[in-house]
Amino acid sequence: MFELHEQLKEDTVTVGQFKLCLVLLHKDANYPWVILVPKRSKMREIHHLAQEDQLQLIRESSHLSEVMTSIFTPTTMNIAALGNVVSQLHVHHVARFSDDPAWPGAIWGAKPAKAYDKEVLEERLNRLHGSLVGEGFEAHCGVDDIMGSSESFTP
Amino acid sequence: MFELHEQLKEDTVTVGQFKLCLVLLHKDANYPWVILVPKRSKMREIHHLAQEDQLQLIRESSHLSEVMTSIFTPTTMNIAALGNVVSQLHVHHVARFSDDPAWPGAIWGAKPAKAYDKEVLEERLNRLHGSLVGEGFEAHCGVDDIMGSSESFTP
Repeated sequence: MFELHEQLKEDTVTVGQFKLCLVLLHKDANYPWVILVPKRSKMREIHHLAQEDQLQLIRESSHLSEVMTSIFTPTTMNIAALGNVVSQLHVHHVARFSDDPAWPGAIWGAKPAKAYDKEVLEERLNRLHGSLVGEGFEAHCGVDDIMGSSESFTP
Repeated sequence: MFELHEQLKEDTVTVGQFKLCLVLLHKDANYPWVILVPKRSKMREIHHLAQEDQLQLIRESSHLSEVMTSIFTPTTMNIAALGNVVSQLHVHHVARFSDDPAWPGAIWGAKPAKAYDKEVLEERLNRLHGSLVGEGFEAHCGVDDIMGSSESFTP
């Protein structure tokens, strides 16, 4: 059975889910940073997914990148599956700007996380909810969850 | 017309090509580090590729990850499309080990590059050539290129 890793619960708020992946917004306000987690148990690497899931992952990833590009108009998108610290397969989607705190370096470990203002976070979640149509997207609109963890979400 | 970015030529040696992507080995000997570059002109983001190319990219990426896992038996694979410094779309595939110089951090900008011994590089290229069968892989076996740049390779 799929269960979200405790660290990912801790670090993110839930935006919703696609057919394959949970869609999580990282609580670090330094960057628009969304994480996809395939809802498959004990999965560590992209190449361990069934081939059909791999194809669905890139569809959902590209759809998310398009939406983030249209909402945030970044300089570029950073897409990465690392898994050195949290072994559960998860794919980072970070909208990068030439004036963001870590540019042009990678974001991981670069700067201390910055907390969101509640209004900014709500507005960001609302924009994602309004644009992530397709690939079976279902929004998760639990208001209680917005400033807390995403523990209450059981996909 | 597709042309490989000068910085990627400078930093890598050519292993060969899949149907969609050039396969390049990074000259930094700190990590087994292979880069896929889709042979499509003026491409910056994965989501800009035609859908069929996106699906082929994940097939080639996963095949490469499987082969690197079987050759190098890493702790995990890091897969990333960043593009903050070199804007041409390229996807990093890095075999990571819990005792490598940057662990558990990301490798980009973490440590100065380390040069390969010629024998180690040749052995690594030979192992990749011997294992990267599938997805239309063709090896590039130009010996002159092994310690130099990959400029002579015109796919």
